[in-house]
Amino acid sequence: MVEVSRDEALRLLGTVEMGRVAFTEQALPAIRPVNHVVGDDGTIVIRTHTGSTLLGHSLASEVVAYEADRIDPVTRTGWSVVVTGVASRVTAPDDVARYRRLLVPWVNAEMAHVVRIVPELVAGYRLEAAPS
Amino acid sequence: MVEVSRDEALRLLGTVEMGRVAFTEQALPAIRPVNHVVGDDGTIVIRTHTGSTLLGHSLASEVVAYEADRIDPVTRTGWSVVVTGVASRVTAPDDVARYRRLLVPWVNAEMAHVVRIVPELVAGYRLEAAPS
Repeated sequence: MVEVSRDEALRLLGTVEMGRVAFTEQALPAIRPVNHVVGDDGTIVIRTHTGSTLLGHSLASEVVAYEADRIDPVTRTGWSVVVTGVASRVTAPDDVARYRRLLVPWVNAEMAHVVRIVPELVAGYRLEAAPS
Repeated sequence: MVEVSRDEALRLLGTVEMGRVAFTEQALPAIRPVNHVVGDDGTIVIRTHTGSTLLGHSLASEVVAYEADRIDPVTRTGWSVVVTGVASRVTAPDDVARYRRLLVPWVNAEMAHVVRIVPELVAGYRLEAAPS
């Protein structure tokens, strides 16, 4: 297991389309798979439906953890990245429109909200083949 | 997006080797990829290292969320399962020995602890192709 730099971790995150967002729901841990885009500034953008418990109940922002990986279960090699940061709604109309174009939801549910996660902590690892 | 039954969700979970555990770390959401086995009783078993913040600080048990999925990014079909339940250390020596055999860690770190997650809430979905 080899640690990678913050820049490399965010680059790896941008090479895949989906990850999982972990957040707190009524004081308990919750996790959802979502698709994402990574902006040039390293910001992670996802979409949620208006009834989502992520940023629900009028929360303006909240800390979330975001994870993506690509691990081959046969060779057991690949990488994993975990980002911890503050999630908040994107509200500027131009940004909302742009991200709605870039980020087509995988499920046929209403996904009206665009959420931006600004990375604070970024931890990335490569799993390399064990020396035999 | 089609909901599946609890039994089907746990069966799907058992068809893959890895998932992500979400838990609370110093009041913030945390998430880690891990490999797992699903027991006959639907219990999810993972291994952690002794310094893990999951069940750290002498916690006897804590609520976690566990997610696994298999989603094809091209066809955008597959499934996702999220389990919420109580995690606790497995301490019975026979069980520890058995799970250590069944569950070989993917990283060359010490993974001395065996942790059992007893599912309370199980939510599973299949993503089916959109009608064209």
